[in-house]
Amino acid sequence: MSGRPLDVLEAALDDTVTITLKDGSAYHGTLAGYDQHMNAVLDPAMASETVDPGTLDVTEVEDTTIIRGDNIVTINV
Amino acid sequence: MSGRPLDVLEAALDDTVTITLKDGSAYHGTLAGYDQHMNAVLDPAMASETVDPGTLDVTEVEDTTIIRGDNIVTINV
Amino acid sequence: MSGRPLDVLEAALDDTVTITLKDGSAYHGTLAGYDQHMNAVLDPAMASETVDPGTLDVTEVEDTTIIRGDNIVTINV
Amino acid sequence: MSGRPLDVLEAALDDTVTITLKDGSAYHGTLAGYDQHMNAVLDPAMASETVDPGTLDVTEVEDTTIIRGDNIVTINV
Amino acid sequence: MSGRPLDVLEAALDDTVTITLKDGSAYHGTLAGYDQHMNAVLDPAMASETVDPGTLDVTEVEDTTIIRGDNIVTINV
Amino acid sequence: MSGRPLDVLEAALDDTVTITLKDGSAYHGTLAGYDQHMNAVLDPAMASETVDPGTLDVTEVEDTTIIRGDNIVTINV
Amino acid sequence: MSGRPLDVLEAALDDTVTITLKDGSAYHGTLAGYDQHMNAVLDPAMASETVDPGTLDVTEVEDTTIIRGDNIVTINV
Repeated sequence: MSGRPLDVLEAALDDTVTITLKDGSAYHGTLAGYDQHMNAVLDPAMASETVDPGTLDVTEVEDTTIIRGDNIVTINV
Repeated sequence: MSGRPLDVLEAALDDTVTITLKDGSAYHGTLAGYDQHMNAVLDPAMASETVDPGTLDVTEVEDTTIIRGDNIVTINV
Repeated sequence: MSGRPLDVLEAALDDTVTITLKDGSAYHGTLAGYDQHMNAVLDPAMASETVDPGTLDVTEVEDTTIIRGDNIVTINV
Repeated sequence: MSGRPLDVLEAALDDTVTITLKDGSAYHGTLAGYDQHMNAVLDPAMASETVDPGTLDVTEVEDTTIIRGDNIVTINV
Repeated sequence: MSGRPLDVLEAALDDTVTITLKDGSAYHGTLAGYDQHMNAVLDPAMASETVDPGTLDVTEVEDTTIIRGDNIVTINV
Repeated sequence: MSGRPLDVLEAALDDTVTITLKDGSAYHGTLAGYDQHMNAVLDPAMASETVDPGTLDVTEVEDTTIIRGDNIVTINV
Repeated sequence: MSGRPLDVLEAALDDTVTITLKDGSAYHGTLAGYDQHMNAVLDPAMASETVDPGTLDVTEVEDTTIIRGDNIVTINV
């Protein structure tokens, strides 16, 4: 799953992703959309998808959530 | 309610949403408008809509409130 | 008073508004102008308009005051 | 002295103004120029113009001073 | 491996790189993609590539990771 | 020496100037160049030019120094 | 070595430079490239070039290093 950043996002649509933000928080869900500013839309992940374990607190999104791109540090696909 | 971020906002018009900001605050109200910078307009929610419970303090808007987009972290629709 | 953010500002011309800034301060006055960057111009409010009560300190503008848009968090109209 | 922000600046040329900055400082002088980024040029105020009294420390400019617009919070005209 | 910044990134595709961020963290992996904003995509490095030793904590990426360019301080190629 | 900000910079070429930055530091030298972003080039001032006395620490530049414009608060010409 | 900022960078190609960043760090090396955003590429300096002495910690680059321009405060050429 390599290539230019937006191509990687395109390929990750409908996959579960973890998005870390500049404030240290992280969100986990199904990537439902994005745009050229890296604004992202997460839907709740399917029950079979476990939360990404890690040292950061990860919020499992419970509603459709738009994340404004300028807050994003990393997107793990 | 999936798709590109601005399409999700378009679909959320007249729905109640919660907008979290970079300063840790959050606003709850009816999405009355937005633009391509993700500037948003909230109207007071209808009485039947309860405030989104959560760990953040959430301000129920009492007047029409414009929120400048560059403050926004997430919009829950 | 709904619609796109700049349409809401256009409709609020000559009305008293409260503008909150990223530094936690707030300004109250009559909206005399704005532009597409959300730079705003406040004139002193008429004497009959009371200051918006609230938990924030609100400065009643005494002279025509230009507020640079990138400082703004919210505009209550 | 109302209208769009840059029109207000145009009308304020050769008037004394107070410019407050994001670092909490403020500058007082005669507005000698500006541009569309709200970069501003202050010349020393005439002796007859007193410094704007207030709670902020206000620097009376002693030389022609360019203030880069992205530092500006407010301009009182 | 000299030249303009994006030419250097182009030449570094498929090489292991270390990216340091404004929050003091660092990521190590194989450069799989980038764009003109310096958004970058890292894939896990091959086992034979050792982590760059140094004074900073360096995270070896375990999944394909998009790093938003505006967080980046340096990229060591 | 009044007018629009970039015209004031143009007129200040080869003059000694003091540039204050957002981190509280200040640089003194001969203005050797600038561009539309207010990036500036300072050369060492001639020996006959004394450093601007003041409350800030002012660095007398010893080599040609490019200052990136987005750090600049004020330029005293 | 005067003139507009990017002309000064062009003239400094293959020279050793010191770049100071907003986080207080500094990098020393041979300027191998740059672009219009002031993104810069440093190669290790030749052994005969001594590190710029100074009050800041200066990192002598050991690998080709891209420095993202928006971190830069000054470039000493």
